[in-house]
Amino acid sequence: MKPIKIGLLGLGTVGTGVVRIIENHQDDLQNQIGSPVIIEKILVSNVNKKRNIDINLDKLTEDAWEIIRNPEIDIIVEVMGGTTLAKEYLIEALNLGKNVVTANKDLLAMYGSELLQLAAKNSSDIYYEASVAGGIPIIRTLVEGFSSDRITKIMGIVNGTTNYILTKMSQEGASYDDVLKEAQKLGYAEADPTSDVEGLDAARKMAILARLGFHTPVALSDVTAEGISNVSKEDISYAKRLGYELKLLGIAECDENQIAVSVQPTMVKKSHPLASVNGVYNAVFVTGEAVGETMFYGAGAGELPTATSVVADIVAVSKNIKLGITGKRVNTTFKKTEQKTKEQISSKYFMLLHVADRAGVLARITQAFAQYEVSLESVVQQPNPDNMNAEIIVITHDASKLAIENIIEELNCLEVVKSVKSLYRVEG
Amino acid sequence: MKPIKIGLLGLGTVGTGVVRIIENHQDDLQNQIGSPVIIEKILVSNVNKKRNIDINLDKLTEDAWEIIRNPEIDIIVEVMGGTTLAKEYLIEALNLGKNVVTANKDLLAMYGSELLQLAAKNSSDIYYEASVAGGIPIIRTLVEGFSSDRITKIMGIVNGTTNYILTKMSQEGASYDDVLKEAQKLGYAEADPTSDVEGLDAARKMAILARLGFHTPVALSDVTAEGISNVSKEDISYAKRLGYELKLLGIAECDENQIAVSVQPTMVKKSHPLASVNGVYNAVFVTGEAVGETMFYGAGAGELPTATSVVADIVAVSKNIKLGITGKRVNTTFKKTEQKTKEQISSKYFMLLHVADRAGVLARITQAFAQYEVSLESVVQQPNPDNMNAEIIVITHDASKLAIENIIEELNCLEVVKSVKSLYRVEG
Repeated sequence: MKPIKIGLLGLGTVGTGVVRIIENHQDDLQNQIGSPVIIEKILVSNVNKKRNIDINLDKLTEDAWEIIRNPEIDIIVEVMGGTTLAKEYLIEALNLGKNVVTANKDLLAMYGSELLQLAAKNSSDIYYEASVAGGIPIIRTLVEGFSSDRITKIMGIVNGTTNYILTKMSQEGASYDDVLKEAQKLGYAEADPTSDVEGLDAARKMAILARLGFHTPVALSDVTAEGISNVSKEDISYAKRLGYELKLLGIAECDENQIAVSVQPTMVKKSHPLASVNGVYNAVFVTGEAVGETMFYGAGAGELPTATSVVADIVAVSKNIKLGITGKRVNTTFKKTEQKTKEQISSKYFMLLHVADRAGVLARITQAFAQYEVSLESVVQQPNPDNMNAEIIVITHDASKLAIENIIEELNCLEVVKSVKSLYRVEG
Repeated sequence: MKPIKIGLLGLGTVGTGVVRIIENHQDDLQNQIGSPVIIEKILVSNVNKKRNIDINLDKLTEDAWEIIRNPEIDIIVEVMGGTTLAKEYLIEALNLGKNVVTANKDLLAMYGSELLQLAAKNSSDIYYEASVAGGIPIIRTLVEGFSSDRITKIMGIVNGTTNYILTKMSQEGASYDDVLKEAQKLGYAEADPTSDVEGLDAARKMAILARLGFHTPVALSDVTAEGISNVSKEDISYAKRLGYELKLLGIAECDENQIAVSVQPTMVKKSHPLASVNGVYNAVFVTGEAVGETMFYGAGAGELPTATSVVADIVAVSKNIKLGITGKRVNTTFKKTEQKTKEQISSKYFMLLHVADRAGVLARITQAFAQYEVSLESVVQQPNPDNMNAEIIVITHDASKLAIENIIEELNCLEVVKSVKSLYRVEG
């Protein structure tokens, strides 16, 4: 049996996991594919670096082209990250008719359409299960499991760093800054955490999920992203008191041919399955017209969970190679959609206001909501012990994003309103 | 484009859902498959019966062979249930080279190996996503998503009827008999509920999941099944007080080459994701060596969720037909395993004893556990207000099934023990 030969680009955390799984599970892989799977060559930045895995030094190279242009290699597995070199390498690989497995969400979110088209043109496979939610096979689920259904909504906790931070803030009443520092010390957050905490990483993953779920092109620029760096421990304590957990949610919605994809800190009702997804775990909650509500939960990152998805893709591509059908199952985006306007994006909202503590204030404020025809689910007014102001907490019924923006503008003009302290979307 | 022609066996709840989804989502299906999907003929027991779906009467027939032997038909979709006629029809269909999609867990659990082999021999597909956990694409997930991993444990809430009953008992403190009657009135339980409440339905589904997850043959007779008909509201109230929910869990385990598959009411720690799966929902919790812990949650039954899985299988088979690769992706069981003995099956246990309320009793009882080297996580003794006895509640550390059986035998011989009231496995 002719072995399937892999060229591995990158030997960091995920790359090391891929080597380990292919070694440890070789028998099982062979039983499923019908051939051995061999890692032929590995691209590293320094062949002499000490590594925490036993590896034959002959397998290592610092020259990417030696791998990509090696006619023996069937599948290029890209786990190096970044979008410049990785893109260049994968384009050349696809042009040479090689199959590609990648864990690179940035590349997929930014150049996905281009890479998928190129793969189809060259009868090559491109698989990327590991690019979203590590070990959870959510891409297969959307593409195959729900192929018969019309997905209307995808809500995801798809960034482990921010979920770790929010979970700690919720469970320990700690501040954002303190938890972030701790997360950095533990390696759960990077030295420059911007991409995670500002929601950019989640936005990229949501662009990929929305494209697959709704069968339509979704540009990264179509995804609005708001992060968690302004979330205070007071906000979380309010959320909990009202029966919610604060989560950084990616939310993708599709009604008829209109879509909206966003990432923002969101109050999730405690009874909702997403509310109890804690720590570095990820979960994707998918609603389909026919299937109803489903959720997929698991490790969102880490060496072996992510490598599991990469190697599952290697198995799928290897089977396709054996059957001579590579490039035949590339996912297409056959639907034309447009972006929802702010008038069409609708949800419940939570708002916390600091107001002057005097008669008639509540009437003046609720009038602002009435003016834009936003009805209220609950309103609580209470004194703020720290100062002379009162606090008003409002949870609205479904309201358009435009109406909420107008109301905030209106409130900011009122003399009795000291500040609109917090505004969160509400789900569940 | 030559259409894909379906022969539908059965027009009950799921069959009706299949017709609806194929009609309503025809454009999307066509976009994915590259051909229209047409339901050519439908087997019913009475063509003149009034139905709650508009259907051309010419499509209906009472003669199964007219469908199975129709050379125009590409895929036989079996949603009629039962194991006698359904088996006869599918064997003939496979022998004629037709592809099969079925939702029939009984058939798969009892004759799965035979049908799969026959399909492979005839280069036909046989897909059965809907046979386990309705709308949750768990079979795809095990077969493809985790193809690279070694699954060590599968725990499932895979029967909606019993989960509905246990949820009601837990939330309302109601008795088993009362909730069962209510469930029957609402259509959540059948007039003869035996198959559901005695764990037989769950056992069939667990046999299918274990076979796929562990790549090994699993006979239905290898699955031990214990139902919920003896669960008392007192048991549930004890469980809750100790921080557990009582769930009917299917548990399949594989260590090296030894497996054990069982279904039993189990105390699940409240912090475990399975504990909050309520009502008619299903969930499957999968542990893999590399991927760690994952969970898949959704509707376990119902017209449209189940039909979603059936039609997703139709899409997959149709793509295989187009690519000329039917029969090439039949799942194989390539591992030889043996059943774990009672000595090898290990878990924590909860035990409730009624004992005489006098000095030295606790010492006598804990001595029985010590004799079989079972250590205890917690022991509570309290008076029982209803009678002259005391109650002792024991939660053990991991213990073998054999040791627990020996201990119970020992306890039953003790004069101070009035009865061993309850025994439950503990997970989470």
